[in-house]
Amino acid sequence: MSVLFDLPQVIFYLDLFGTVVFAITGVLAAAERRLDLFGVIVVGTVTAIGGGTIRDLILGRTPVFWVHDTLYIWLTIGASVLTFVYARWSRLPHRILLIADALGLAVFTVIGAQVAMNLGHPPIISVVTGVMTGVFGGIVRDVLTAEKPLIFQKEIYATAAMLGAVVFVNLSWFLPGSWTTFNNVTAM
Amino acid sequence: MSVLFDLPQVIFYLDLFGTVVFAITGVLAAAERRLDLFGVIVVGTVTAIGGGTIRDLILGRTPVFWVHDTLYIWLTIGASVLTFVYARWSRLPHRILLIADALGLAVFTVIGAQVAMNLGHPPIISVVTGVMTGVFGGIVRDVLTAEKPLIFQKEIYATAAMLGAVVFVNLSWFLPGSWTTFNNVTAM
Amino acid sequence: MSVLFDLPQVIFYLDLFGTVVFAITGVLAAAERRLDLFGVIVVGTVTAIGGGTIRDLILGRTPVFWVHDTLYIWLTIGASVLTFVYARWSRLPHRILLIADALGLAVFTVIGAQVAMNLGHPPIISVVTGVMTGVFGGIVRDVLTAEKPLIFQKEIYATAAMLGAVVFVNLSWFLPGSWTTFNNVTAM
Repeated sequence: MSVLFDLPQVIFYLDLFGTVVFAITGVLAAAERRLDLFGVIVVGTVTAIGGGTIRDLILGRTPVFWVHDTLYIWLTIGASVLTFVYARWSRLPHRILLIADALGLAVFTVIGAQVAMNLGHPPIISVVTGVMTGVFGGIVRDVLTAEKPLIFQKEIYATAAMLGAVVFVNLSWFLPGSWTTFNNVTAM
Repeated sequence: MSVLFDLPQVIFYLDLFGTVVFAITGVLAAAERRLDLFGVIVVGTVTAIGGGTIRDLILGRTPVFWVHDTLYIWLTIGASVLTFVYARWSRLPHRILLIADALGLAVFTVIGAQVAMNLGHPPIISVVTGVMTGVFGGIVRDVLTAEKPLIFQKEIYATAAMLGAVVFVNLSWFLPGSWTTFNNVTAM
Repeated sequence: MSVLFDLPQVIFYLDLFGTVVFAITGVLAAAERRLDLFGVIVVGTVTAIGGGTIRDLILGRTPVFWVHDTLYIWLTIGASVLTFVYARWSRLPHRILLIADALGLAVFTVIGAQVAMNLGHPPIISVVTGVMTGVFGGIVRDVLTAEKPLIFQKEIYATAAMLGAVVFVNLSWFLPGSWTTFNNVTAM
């Protein structure tokens, strides 16, 4: 739609990017616990699609998004297997992963907020589902893999997600429609 | 309806009371783990509305209750922030909290049982959803915050909740309708 | 339907069998943590019906299966109480339980895959919901009861479940309909 670039399309690719990044962080957390390939796929998948799943359940959007669009499942399984294999031979660049993780969190938060807004829910619900989409997968990952729960270790990111969701939801009243209503993105 | 007092109204206020009390216990558990404000809000909120959320999901009442009535979210966030600040300066009265917690558990259990009854489900389902509404939030709180899971530490209360739900569901056949069908309460 | 035996009927009884076996393993895990009767019933029930519950939620089949057919709840509560009492007097045969557990996992996986297939979802979704139905209850059991999470300890079984689901979903294209579409089973 835009003269410069198509925002919904960009958001869609960022969503897939976030899904892959979250799967990788799940796999790395699982690898530290010496889980085998199956455990690794489970933790990678839960980390990547857990937040969006709980959001869809709470808003009554069932079957949930990844049942409609199997691309998400294929991506998480693929990313999990590749990371599992790659991590045996080489180290992943920790610094880049941290930045990618923060970007994934931001994208998931905006998408989660957007889903509730598109359904006509009040701003506070958009903020809650946004934060939920961003952080829930990571919380379950930590519960499943940590010796002692590491939940909220990356609180600084989570707080950023919450503030970002508040800003986004409020901004959406002022921005032109096409910037905040990307209805055609499958995941929503 | 009653000459003396309006039961549905009383139950509604008890529900809000229970929500605030559960949020406070969640915040105190999170504070012991030295979580920051964001972690505290997440744990407080999950503790307060987790039980009702899983009940609504299982019964297919989506979007769940707090999406319909945002008062619950505002209350839990407000109670979480206030408790977080207050707990830095002063100690909360432990004894009163224990009694308030038991009362909140009782209220949540009765409301959870009532929701299933109003939908026409069999007595055993009412008992299960009642207990679930009462104890689920606390179980998740413990999983999220305990060094080693403290789940079922307060089993004596939980057993009381279960017995209370059984008694309530059976009594409801004998009591006048207005005492057990408080349909007009938003949360139900 | 079959000349030799009625497959849907056999699957139904295997489903009840799996439910009882999973409840028993949940109770034994809870007993090691010295939970009282209430805690034992909660863990036994979650282990037995947790997998099917999350499957139903994700596919939008609400109210979930055990709300429709209360037999599952009665079975898990009954099996939990009996196991709790029996385990105080005598030891359960560990070897037989392991085999029963593996059989329960296989049955739950096939049923979980079948449910998604009957709803017309793609093969990958059937595999995911199959594995989910088989392993989710055990994962929650481990999170609730383990000193340190024992999740994925029985990975060899879980990997078997995943492979079994893949084989089953693919075979279903070649087998006669009555062997893979047991629509009349209540749990589905």
